Amino acid sequence: MDKRPIGVFDSGIGGLTVLKKIAKALPNEDLIYFGDTARVPYGTRSKETIRKFAQEDVNFLLTKNVKCIVIACHTVSSVAAIQNGSTASVPIINATTPTLNFLKDAKRKRIAVIGTRGTISSGVYKKSLRKTKVTEQECPLLVPIIEEGEKGEVLESAMRLYLSNIKKVKPDLVVLACTHYPIIKKEIKDFLGDVEILDPADLISRELKRFLVSNHLQSKSSKKGGVKFFVTDTVEHFAKNAKELLREEVSGKIERIKLTQ
Amino acid sequence: MDKRPIGVFDSGIGGLTVLKKIAKALPNEDLIYFGDTARVPYGTRSKETIRKFAQEDVNFLLTKNVKCIVIACHTVSSVAAIQNGSTASVPIINATTPTLNFLKDAKRKRIAVIGTRGTISSGVYKKSLRKTKVTEQECPLLVPIIEEGEKGEVLESAMRLYLSNIKKVKPDLVVLACTHYPIIKKEIKDFLGDVEILDPADLISRELKRFLVSNHLQSKSSKKGGVKFFVTDTVEHFAKNAKELLREEVSGKIERIKLTQ
Repeated sequence: MDKRPIGVFDSGIGGLTVLKKIAKALPNEDLIYFGDTARVPYGTRSKETIRKFAQEDVNFLLTKNVKCIVIACHTVSSVAAIQNGSTASVPIINATTPTLNFLKDAKRKRIAVIGTRGTISSGVYKKSLRKTKVTEQECPLLVPIIEEGEKGEVLESAMRLYLSNIKKVKPDLVVLACTHYPIIKKEIKDFLGDVEILDPADLISRELKRFLVSNHLQSKSSKKGGVKFFVTDTVEHFAKNAKELLREEVSGKIERIKLTQ
Repeated sequence: MDKRPIGVFDSGIGGLTVLKKIAKALPNEDLIYFGDTARVPYGTRSKETIRKFAQEDVNFLLTKNVKCIVIACHTVSSVAAIQNGSTASVPIINATTPTLNFLKDAKRKRIAVIGTRGTISSGVYKKSLRKTKVTEQECPLLVPIIEEGEKGEVLESAMRLYLSNIKKVKPDLVVLACTHYPIIKKEIKDFLGDVEILDPADLISRELKRFLVSNHLQSKSSKKGGVKFFVTDTVEHFAKNAKELLREEVSGKIERIKLTQ
């Protein structure tokens, strides 16, 4: 049994979609969310810079005495082999592995994966799922469009640009390999028609719960857990953008921090 | 007469459109370009963070012994009151003032300004041009769309979203208050029809030349000046993106640097 909080991080606010599922699956755990809002997006940066930023993000969470770290960001999970660093050694659950494990067992013949340029150029899904036909598609404009809350003609033309090929290959399942995409899950489903859509956040929170239980690391508390937020741009900027993105207030203390490099 | 280089900076690669005009107007000057490619874009960040980043960018250029600094970035020029810092005091030419001076004299009755959220929310054009009817329009998705080189349906739907109101008010002149927009000048003109389009880069390079001449700060060299590039993401990342954006190779030495905060 372990009272320490769980650390969750993402390049920006997208990981809040993962945090929500974790809070629902593990209601008594204290959570710490870190969003690198002054340097988001990661998906268009070089692999080297993504790795450097990710290591700084992990190092920050380690200073908060977390019992484990969830990498909500698919770009980081696909590109960076995170080291625990010298501060402390805590287990890390990334956004990619639970999905890959599910897909290895799931016996779908043909799947499609959509994500940022960083995630897709890593080729991790194709490399790991050799028995499945995998169509990978980068969708670099979806994140800014979702962050702007555009759901009309702009989103539709971007979906035609990125998803037409996926519609053509008729996959059994489409992986939303970016924390922003669940926000437009309905629009993606409407565009693609009758296809199973996988939000990895469900698998990530399930894997986290399984891990905590099997290692006796759950909190024993019967109280509802709290959430603390740490960001690199201003507190107001985060609160405003998160509210616009998720259409609800963020509840919990938000603090601005400076990363030590 | 002054042999020192001129420093030019932008949040990323957009400022290369300004650099080109400066190199053409002042062919014998040595130029140093700094692009904060690991933290671009600035236009969607909080004012406080934009100011902090801009000050770090200026501080970096001051270490390169520049004789003056051109802020190519409209977001920084609109939001940040840059200090020369303690290292050295050099004159700063921003992207906004030459345009405002031109428009004060130009006697256009109705103008429109398009830019990033940061630039437009500063309201600098409306505040400074009290005798002109000014329509300001933020176009947050244009930068990512231009960086992706999308010129089809996605760009058209974004222009309909952002520029329809401008088309309706029939301005005499439209200011492209973002270094990326000149790259789609033709598409903007096609969409808006018969209207004068102002690229501030022409005014910035003219103001820079006037300033150097009147203060006897030009280089006496009769040789063609050189350009050195400094970036915060990798060298390869910059070279690749700049080539894709401008459809030509960047010529000059590129070096990756780490900003000291």
